[in-house]
Amino acid sequence: MAIMSTDEQQGAAQRRPEARKPRGFPDRTAAIIAAERKLVDSITAVYQRWGFDALDTGPFEYVDALGKFLPDADRPNAGVFALQDDDEQWIALRYDHTAPLARYVAENWERIPKPFRRYSAGPVWRNEKPGPFRFREFIQCDADSVGVSGPAADAEMIAIAAQAMQAAGAQHGEYLIRVNSRQLLDGIMETAGVLDPMQRGTVLRALDKFDKFGVEGVMLLLGKGRKDESGDVTQGAGLAANQIDVLLEFITARSISRAETARKLANSVGMTRSGATGVAELAEIDAILTALGIGDDAAAFDPSIVRGLEYYTGPVFEAEYLREFHDADGNALRFGSVGGGGRYDGLVARFRGEPAPATGFSVGVSRLAAAMAVSEGPAVEGPVLVLVMDKDQLADYATLASDLRRAGVRAEMYLGSSGMKAQMKYADRRNSPAVVIVGGNEREKGVVTIKDLKAGAAAAKGMTDNEAWRAERPGQFECARGEMVARIKAIAGAP
Amino acid sequence: MAIMSTDEQQGAAQRRPEARKPRGFPDRTAAIIAAERKLVDSITAVYQRWGFDALDTGPFEYVDALGKFLPDADRPNAGVFALQDDDEQWIALRYDHTAPLARYVAENWERIPKPFRRYSAGPVWRNEKPGPFRFREFIQCDADSVGVSGPAADAEMIAIAAQAMQAAGAQHGEYLIRVNSRQLLDGIMETAGVLDPMQRGTVLRALDKFDKFGVEGVMLLLGKGRKDESGDVTQGAGLAANQIDVLLEFITARSISRAETARKLANSVGMTRSGATGVAELAEIDAILTALGIGDDAAAFDPSIVRGLEYYTGPVFEAEYLREFHDADGNALRFGSVGGGGRYDGLVARFRGEPAPATGFSVGVSRLAAAMAVSEGPAVEGPVLVLVMDKDQLADYATLASDLRRAGVRAEMYLGSSGMKAQMKYADRRNSPAVVIVGGNEREKGVVTIKDLKAGAAAAKGMTDNEAWRAERPGQFECARGEMVARIKAIAGAP
Repeated sequence: MAIMSTDEQQGAAQRRPEARKPRGFPDRTAAIIAAERKLVDSITAVYQRWGFDALDTGPFEYVDALGKFLPDADRPNAGVFALQDDDEQWIALRYDHTAPLARYVAENWERIPKPFRRYSAGPVWRNEKPGPFRFREFIQCDADSVGVSGPAADAEMIAIAAQAMQAAGAQHGEYLIRVNSRQLLDGIMETAGVLDPMQRGTVLRALDKFDKFGVEGVMLLLGKGRKDESGDVTQGAGLAANQIDVLLEFITARSISRAETARKLANSVGMTRSGATGVAELAEIDAILTALGIGDDAAAFDPSIVRGLEYYTGPVFEAEYLREFHDADGNALRFGSVGGGGRYDGLVARFRGEPAPATGFSVGVSRLAAAMAVSEGPAVEGPVLVLVMDKDQLADYATLASDLRRAGVRAEMYLGSSGMKAQMKYADRRNSPAVVIVGGNEREKGVVTIKDLKAGAAAAKGMTDNEAWRAERPGQFECARGEMVARIKAIAGAP
Repeated sequence: MAIMSTDEQQGAAQRRPEARKPRGFPDRTAAIIAAERKLVDSITAVYQRWGFDALDTGPFEYVDALGKFLPDADRPNAGVFALQDDDEQWIALRYDHTAPLARYVAENWERIPKPFRRYSAGPVWRNEKPGPFRFREFIQCDADSVGVSGPAADAEMIAIAAQAMQAAGAQHGEYLIRVNSRQLLDGIMETAGVLDPMQRGTVLRALDKFDKFGVEGVMLLLGKGRKDESGDVTQGAGLAANQIDVLLEFITARSISRAETARKLANSVGMTRSGATGVAELAEIDAILTALGIGDDAAAFDPSIVRGLEYYTGPVFEAEYLREFHDADGNALRFGSVGGGGRYDGLVARFRGEPAPATGFSVGVSRLAAAMAVSEGPAVEGPVLVLVMDKDQLADYATLASDLRRAGVRAEMYLGSSGMKAQMKYADRRNSPAVVIVGGNEREKGVVTIKDLKAGAAAAKGMTDNEAWRAERPGQFECARGEMVARIKAIAGAP
């Protein structure tokens, strides 16, 4: 389409497109992008150090290859963004990194080293209802080992999850990896006499509400049902009192140490075959975690964790961020689970028919990055601005800005025809640390004037009553051209 | 969907999905991903230093907001990946970063600093026929200034393009920024008497073939037409000989310096109003480029550059990578244009009705990264592998691998139940620099055995006939456990 002439533009005024964008895909500015980059780099460095290699499977998969294996039990039919390719086959944007991994492994089975250890860091897309801190595109960082069975591989994933949380800035005590297993849950179902698959589903959904509703709420959901504040009633599982007792004892079995929790679980589910297997695996996981330096304060056994049990086949875990962030108004932002993982032995088998055991961990960084950016404010320092005082001196101003950049200082020459006031306002808007001014006066004397906007801002806030300090770092001063770079570097703090 | 039981899996064998992926979205492995990351980081560091702030507008735009403004004149109707959102509005994946920028600027006009300087680095998607090194998803890195008119802003973009090429690894003489302008082309059309808009289009497409077909080919395309090797005939523009002469003199006007080229162009188009404007702008651009240290060998005026003139409204330029890469078989990979840019004053006006002058630069890094990875080979060093000799010593092996990681060494414990031979083969497949072996023997003596696979590989290649060197760095040796980290670091070269 040709660029419109002025006449055409006027004629087109009514049919101008509206400048708006689809919901759930917010425009993201520098502070959030920087926070996200930092998180991705730190977390993938952990994966890299543990021996995982990067793999990017691209955005699209065939819909039949992608399947519907969302790990989140609450939304088994969550939507994807799908469209028909030019050969009329349906393709869809990946909703996670695991489904494409399964396709990749099946497609390249003969060529890849086994075990196959890869990490992926990139966007995934979910065609769901967006909300605050709930995006339709977000970055996930995953590490997976395919072709490995046995709890040592799962223990490693739990340790990696702990180190990923540390890489994301969580200090000791600010995060917790909570571990459970499919076998333990199967064992307790058998022990409690919950045998019907439908009823098991209802019971698992009830147990999953422990964090939200506590013992009282879960008790109602396991029994007759629960009425919420709005008056809506959630149908209960209809269990008998003794069944409910068994289940509640189980989900509250978390104790001060992994060893102690495992001992309690051995009592409650150890008499079933699944349960005994689960308890034995926990013991192995505990031993490896301890060897890896992951203490009870970093990773706990917690039987109340219920995590996509239609997807996972062995140990499962959630990574919880306990640290509190605050927005600009001081409101607390809590995170809860920011990642999770576990053993999924069925995914590659979908393609190959043969089993290919696998275990992995995934952490979502977009929500975290958004909260960090809100919490920590715009940390991005703007460029030093070289003002344009005389239009016929552009080459000279360009040289000054270039000299600064050569020294590693972020710097730009003002582009435009506005006067000094507008240029200073622009420097302020850009969060510039300083401006450089060369008018006829400076040119004659062979100097530049530097306005230190940080000092100016500090002075304006009354933070610099100390006369000595003010004398040492005045808001505005002249210096020789040859000293400009050094003086600016002292202000802008270039790398 | 539940994980299938073994019986169900067998029953499902016929309806197993095929492990395949859509064309044009290749799986990308570690070496390519690392090359791409390095390119993106280096190029965006240039943008950052020039004062541009990061912006990510997200993958989707409404189709009407996106418009059809592909800068590539050859494919004005190139396809996008579009689908209907749940509110039935059509959305599409961005095909470049400029159309979303225009939407963003129009939507946030009152809130953004002006000039508005942002960079974007991320994937764009084109629903086109894929081919070798021609992907349907690729990374573009863009810098744009909106709200600026005048050639100083364009000169800055050209200088940024030169620095971006250097950041991408091009040495002096390995790249060239070739500059032309809409005004010069308008001027030469007027001078040659090519006034009909349709005919102008045909003529521009002919001029654009100068690189490919040379003077002879362009002469035919401007005249009666050209038959290619396959016998296909391209209709000519039907110009008279004197018109063709004027145009050929114009497109071959590039001389040894920008100043000299500008002088020649003043002669050929300076008598038209457009042409005179274009020549005056070149003079300003030359002065700024010189001030910025961009010499004639880095940026040239080249009137044969024709670049999406239905899109650009002023100076235009292409960034050409002259460096040759070679694939594994020694075949030369040439790049030609890897980026380009120019002034586009009409894009934001689409939304706002008022003019909003803008200029920008875009470089595609995916093709470049793929070629670098092919050319430079798999540079990714694998992890040090701690072999599992005794299944009941997993915690100990885990500790050894953990000790290495703590020291910054990439390391993993072998996961699986295979014997030593398979484990060694795995280390080889992973490109591991070394393996650590602790069997009963070592455990008794309190030592570890280290196998230096780099030395082993070098020895196998007969590169280490020097006995002294071999004694100093043997392929396999024992050391005390406490010395393991230091000995491994000497081999693996951890950061």
